[in-house]
Amino acid sequence: MEQNPETLEKLRVPALDEILGSKFLVLDDGFIRVVDYMGSDESIVQAARVSYGKGTKKVSEDRGLIRYLMRHHHTTPFEMCEIKLHIRVPMDTWRQWIRHRTANVNEYSTRYSIAIDASQKTKTGEWRIQAKDNKQGSEGFFPEEIGSKLTEREAELQNFAKEIYMERLSLGVAREQARKDLPLSTYTEAYWKIDLQNLFHFLALRMESHAQFEIRTYANVIGSQIVRRWCPIAWEAFLDYRINSLSFSAQETEILKQIYAGNKNEAVKLADGFGWIKIIDKRFAKNIERMEFEEKLEILGIEKPWE
Amino acid sequence: MEQNPETLEKLRVPALDEILGSKFLVLDDGFIRVVDYMGSDESIVQAARVSYGKGTKKVSEDRGLIRYLMRHHHTTPFEMCEIKLHIRVPMDTWRQWIRHRTANVNEYSTRYSIAIDASQKTKTGEWRIQAKDNKQGSEGFFPEEIGSKLTEREAELQNFAKEIYMERLSLGVAREQARKDLPLSTYTEAYWKIDLQNLFHFLALRMESHAQFEIRTYANVIGSQIVRRWCPIAWEAFLDYRINSLSFSAQETEILKQIYAGNKNEAVKLADGFGWIKIIDKRFAKNIERMEFEEKLEILGIEKPWE
Amino acid sequence: MEQNPETLEKLRVPALDEILGSKFLVLDDGFIRVVDYMGSDESIVQAARVSYGKGTKKVSEDRGLIRYLMRHHHTTPFEMCEIKLHIRVPMDTWRQWIRHRTANVNEYSTRYSIAIDASQKTKTGEWRIQAKDNKQGSEGFFPEEIGSKLTEREAELQNFAKEIYMERLSLGVAREQARKDLPLSTYTEAYWKIDLQNLFHFLALRMESHAQFEIRTYANVIGSQIVRRWCPIAWEAFLDYRINSLSFSAQETEILKQIYAGNKNEAVKLADGFGWIKIIDKRFAKNIERMEFEEKLEILGIEKPWE
Amino acid sequence: MEQNPETLEKLRVPALDEILGSKFLVLDDGFIRVVDYMGSDESIVQAARVSYGKGTKKVSEDRGLIRYLMRHHHTTPFEMCEIKLHIRVPMDTWRQWIRHRTANVNEYSTRYSIAIDASQKTKTGEWRIQAKDNKQGSEGFFPEEIGSKLTEREAELQNFAKEIYMERLSLGVAREQARKDLPLSTYTEAYWKIDLQNLFHFLALRMESHAQFEIRTYANVIGSQIVRRWCPIAWEAFLDYRINSLSFSAQETEILKQIYAGNKNEAVKLADGFGWIKIIDKRFAKNIERMEFEEKLEILGIEKPWE
Repeated sequence: MEQNPETLEKLRVPALDEILGSKFLVLDDGFIRVVDYMGSDESIVQAARVSYGKGTKKVSEDRGLIRYLMRHHHTTPFEMCEIKLHIRVPMDTWRQWIRHRTANVNEYSTRYSIAIDASQKTKTGEWRIQAKDNKQGSEGFFPEEIGSKLTEREAELQNFAKEIYMERLSLGVAREQARKDLPLSTYTEAYWKIDLQNLFHFLALRMESHAQFEIRTYANVIGSQIVRRWCPIAWEAFLDYRINSLSFSAQETEILKQIYAGNKNEAVKLADGFGWIKIIDKRFAKNIERMEFEEKLEILGIEKPWE
Repeated sequence: MEQNPETLEKLRVPALDEILGSKFLVLDDGFIRVVDYMGSDESIVQAARVSYGKGTKKVSEDRGLIRYLMRHHHTTPFEMCEIKLHIRVPMDTWRQWIRHRTANVNEYSTRYSIAIDASQKTKTGEWRIQAKDNKQGSEGFFPEEIGSKLTEREAELQNFAKEIYMERLSLGVAREQARKDLPLSTYTEAYWKIDLQNLFHFLALRMESHAQFEIRTYANVIGSQIVRRWCPIAWEAFLDYRINSLSFSAQETEILKQIYAGNKNEAVKLADGFGWIKIIDKRFAKNIERMEFEEKLEILGIEKPWE
Repeated sequence: MEQNPETLEKLRVPALDEILGSKFLVLDDGFIRVVDYMGSDESIVQAARVSYGKGTKKVSEDRGLIRYLMRHHHTTPFEMCEIKLHIRVPMDTWRQWIRHRTANVNEYSTRYSIAIDASQKTKTGEWRIQAKDNKQGSEGFFPEEIGSKLTEREAELQNFAKEIYMERLSLGVAREQARKDLPLSTYTEAYWKIDLQNLFHFLALRMESHAQFEIRTYANVIGSQIVRRWCPIAWEAFLDYRINSLSFSAQETEILKQIYAGNKNEAVKLADGFGWIKIIDKRFAKNIERMEFEEKLEILGIEKPWE
Repeated sequence: MEQNPETLEKLRVPALDEILGSKFLVLDDGFIRVVDYMGSDESIVQAARVSYGKGTKKVSEDRGLIRYLMRHHHTTPFEMCEIKLHIRVPMDTWRQWIRHRTANVNEYSTRYSIAIDASQKTKTGEWRIQAKDNKQGSEGFFPEEIGSKLTEREAELQNFAKEIYMERLSLGVAREQARKDLPLSTYTEAYWKIDLQNLFHFLALRMESHAQFEIRTYANVIGSQIVRRWCPIAWEAFLDYRINSLSFSAQETEILKQIYAGNKNEAVKLADGFGWIKIIDKRFAKNIERMEFEEKLEILGIEKPWE
């Protein structure tokens, strides 16, 4: 566990140093940039080997070890990497972001300073239609003519909100009170510091297809632009074992088993026993567990046994 | 460390059960109510005594023990009490509230449901003037005639924001996007669960005179209406050792010593050495450390040695 | 979101109240007992519905909702349940236990009190043989004759350690120093308080077959004796979606697809590309990823494509 | 909030880089060394200024700002600094250390590897006598003749424990079980990563005079050898406002006021009202609050009003 004194430069990751401080633009006026970081793929390995003592250095290669750790939820070595980002994000998105409690945060204060003079604006082609099946999702976009109307009205509201805010400030209203009616679309900035393990947790939830478009966009930049450069081996393992993995419940596993064995009837009987395939009005009643399973079957190229 | 099987009712605090579920109204349309809780003054004592083993039950009375724990920052026994509140609070206040990371939270989702149809409204006499000395504070209120104008404009903005929001919803814009320009004054609701130790930390910061009026009002209700009933002995100790205590830095302690010894000149010399009493334009330059010390001297009824 | 004032008894779970304070014995001299708790399956549902607002109560049944939350990692409603356990456990096991940082803890202090006069003793048939393949595991037991020798020697050491400890105490050595050579097998006690979400995380790691026997035994008691009574629906969902689920990596998913399509050769080619089936000395070289996949194939009743 | 691309070297603290990887020896066989770190005094300032926006850079100097943050418990900017230490410490001390839950940890595994072959040994002059007044403290040392006997017996026990451990290993007992009777004095090693704010919290508790000698020694090395080099301004502020500060409760403040006003009788009357000066057998009954206050009076050079 000795450390060579001359290895100071080993603490840096050149690929990340190259983009240090540079802004990745997100949405219409947001950004993410790396302020500082600590650790690398190598320090994940180094931390893991504290546990294993001397003489284990040759047992596994670094890549194999990192993948093993990721696969088996040995999370503590990933916590040994830390990153500090400077982000600019609409308050509405920040409301979701801040729910991740394991990060350190310094946010721009509209109590102390005048609010950032920028609100997230929606382009005419970016207005999303409420999803029918998913209460918290969207599907598709409005046509330009409706979109342009919506964008116009958005501008009216944002301008009026700004007018009121400036009016209050010029009258001498306390900043902490003047801000009370700012729209959620107002941009804020923050330093956000988090360890790699918790960042992966954030990314797993926010890169996911059900995450809201805005935060998903930030998450994708953090993942594919920053983490990929910072810890490429851990990033690849994260994609293989988390993002692109497929998990089957106890029930799904039982059915899969029957499918492989060619017992289609048994598979259907099991699903029926789980209450997945009730028939109402001559068609399958909506059942979320069955529908989710069917999606996984499709990924595996297996056809549904019940149709 | 035995527990009597018949003491199930010992787990409840009658004074808190009385108000269980009842709303304490806060601001113009907010509230706080206790949903559930676990523990009491007695369970703080019980947890502390796990550490001390058998035979220590008579050594200290409960009150003395709780006060000792509070005084000496033995915080773990206070963590053994937990409370779950249901709160209704403007999003602007919630933005501060949520920064306390040690709580469990379930917030009303405006992605899933239509936003709560209520915004914090400011009465004509409640508009606060920006403080001059404290960038993040206020001092005094605007006169009615200005206040009524501000309130009127506030209503215009809130109504317009609501109009736009409803317009988007009726067009079929996804809720997650329609909400993007809601004003920060919009009310939200949440279940908020926290242990007593971390609640005290929250209260120490948010009952403090520099905390913003809105969150301070909530904190005061939680403290004086809820915690006081729940764990009255711990609450009293918290007031005595945290809220109403007075702390002196190393420098202040040195000066105090000279003051008590009657060495006024020495006291001034020390302050000068600390850079507290530079004279610019024939008067003391603004120095925050000196000014804060002077406030403490006033509490002790001691006059400043340098005037 | 109203709460009926007369529903105080709704806060209790009769099946758990029945065993409140009762000891579940673990190992030779350890135990677990429930000191207090807050919440139930019903309060998970209640918290989830804060997010969904009014009018959603009939949409899903409670069971379906809880299962949905578990399946989709909507973890916050599970955090609304909290439990406080009193445990007695060998220090060696406690060293693993305490690594879970999200709990509140009050441990028996051997600085303040004399150490608990009990050490974990190993029965003659309980001595485990070091596993060959798994550096941190065991496989099988020693025969009685070796076991009885080991147990005898264990007693010698434990007795001698106790003798030295008592010798120090009777000489007046400070307790905080006298304890320094106590064996790790010495029992300690603690109050341990944790929310259900973090408890599930603890159980997922510690009920797992690779967890050390001792802590696994405690975890199994907490799960099957306590959580099962406390929140039976959440417990069932935890078993179905965590404990008894099967997860496939991106690579494994690709191979599975070929297997189901009947393309055995393609499956082998893929595995070869992943570096899983190198042949050394005419047999497959040890490859952990391949071996883990083979185990999962066996669960599904699928034979390896490469043999 | 721009960051100059050429300031990569600004991220390093030369005074800390100088000792990077070097061991500070602690106790008879322990050590602490810095593996890596992120941040500096300058990055505390930088983070604080995120809150204050543009144009505030000249308002306060860095030192004044850091001291202000420390004094007013604005803790988040200190969280922006992170340090990773490699420590070697007796398990008994580690049991206290690990109770600080806000750090990231990778500990040497005696499940995976053979235990570190070193136990903390006590020199003949280092055996401490149990304190009479403080149940968890010590006062003074045993004379050499008793000490040498104790040290001899310590060696006997440690040797015997080692013999048993090696015996088990050579028989093939699983490492995870063989270790069960290792003495608490056995050394362990860990990577320990923590942010500066939580490190200060650790130091405040563990540098304190009531902390056990062993962990206090480690804490002092971390503070005076490492943090002092890393963030010298924050370290100085920590000493002034935490370590060397003096805090008075509401009651103590009231009495102090009377003392400074020269009303000795009023001071005594107040203390009597608080129950501090009950007389039993013609002398003051032991009262911890009074005794603690008397200690503070002594620091201020004030004589007790009640004698």
